[in-house]
Amino acid sequence: MSHTTWTPMIFIVSAPSGAGKTTLCDKLQAEFKNLHYAITATTRPSREGEVNGKHYYFLTEDEFERRLKSGDFFETAVVHGYRYGSPKSPVIEALRAGRDVLMNLDVQGAAVIRKCVAAAPPGDPLHRELVDIFVVPPSLETLKKRLVKRGKDTDETIERRLKQAKEEISHWQEYKYKVVNDDLAEAYDNMRAIILAERHKTRNRADD
Amino acid sequence: MSHTTWTPMIFIVSAPSGAGKTTLCDKLQAEFKNLHYAITATTRPSREGEVNGKHYYFLTEDEFERRLKSGDFFETAVVHGYRYGSPKSPVIEALRAGRDVLMNLDVQGAAVIRKCVAAAPPGDPLHRELVDIFVVPPSLETLKKRLVKRGKDTDETIERRLKQAKEEISHWQEYKYKVVNDDLAEAYDNMRAIILAERHKTRNRADD
Repeated sequence: MSHTTWTPMIFIVSAPSGAGKTTLCDKLQAEFKNLHYAITATTRPSREGEVNGKHYYFLTEDEFERRLKSGDFFETAVVHGYRYGSPKSPVIEALRAGRDVLMNLDVQGAAVIRKCVAAAPPGDPLHRELVDIFVVPPSLETLKKRLVKRGKDTDETIERRLKQAKEEISHWQEYKYKVVNDDLAEAYDNMRAIILAERHKTRNRADD
Repeated sequence: MSHTTWTPMIFIVSAPSGAGKTTLCDKLQAEFKNLHYAITATTRPSREGEVNGKHYYFLTEDEFERRLKSGDFFETAVVHGYRYGSPKSPVIEALRAGRDVLMNLDVQGAAVIRKCVAAAPPGDPLHRELVDIFVVPPSLETLKKRLVKRGKDTDETIERRLKQAKEEISHWQEYKYKVVNDDLAEAYDNMRAIILAERHKTRNRADD
């Protein structure tokens, strides 16, 4: 009788900008060493402090195109003229190595991965449990205060972000879990609880 | 937007004798004040230190019979000539008051409640999420060592308990979650995680 293993799974975290998603994902990676954090590929130049393979995979247009043609992206998007894509192969490698995968995605990206995983037939490395979590601010008023306090955006940008947040939040029911980030410690306790609980689902047990 | 409430649910914990179920349930009650711990009714006399309404509802034969006839028991059993029953009304009252219910049941008892809750039609106070957790010792060898160390049982009783444990453990796949109690702190962390995670399931959210 061995009771220590589970079938590796895919965790998706989505949240409107300013809900604290990045902080929560960083904390999850710090606690759960087994988590593989899926990184986005992009053709935009790296900014100061950004590390290739840690924050993004920085690719040339040619390399991006080559990978796209070989079918290595779950999804791609163009933002401000630069291309972005979620590479499949590192996700599949991590799952094969027995690691859970953590993906930080917007509502549209999450929908694509959800569909892709649901369509994976038995035997396919992506045929597995997908656990999606939507992180929300306690209210739009709180979100606005946080964005103002952060001081990174103009009033106009803040209004645009709020409008976008409202639209994104309307999708919360597409997710399996919803965590309100009012108090960071409490929100994190709930996020880690979801990971621990999912690993203890009978149907996810890889043991006897 | 209020995000702090969930639809109260029923948690069932089952485990073979010696797996640490009582300690884990006590710890859950200490942390989650909202949990209503469902108590069994019995016609057996109270033992030293047992409190009516805390450890058991101690009933006379007549009172037990009256409640049985009024349909107030989920299930009843006879052990060593005494009657035992799981009363429905305190569970329903707790759920109506917005409290989650924690039931400590054997495999047979859990099966009865599971069936009863699954059969409850919409509008029925029992029509709700049932979350069942099976707690197992790391191995039958460990369980044996624990029972020997506890020093409460004869060799014969220990052998009987082990045989029963083996039979009970064979039912683990009937449960939604399985928690191995190797290290108590770790097992407890996983138990509380299950409660927290279930409260954050989108479909259990009572808010917007």
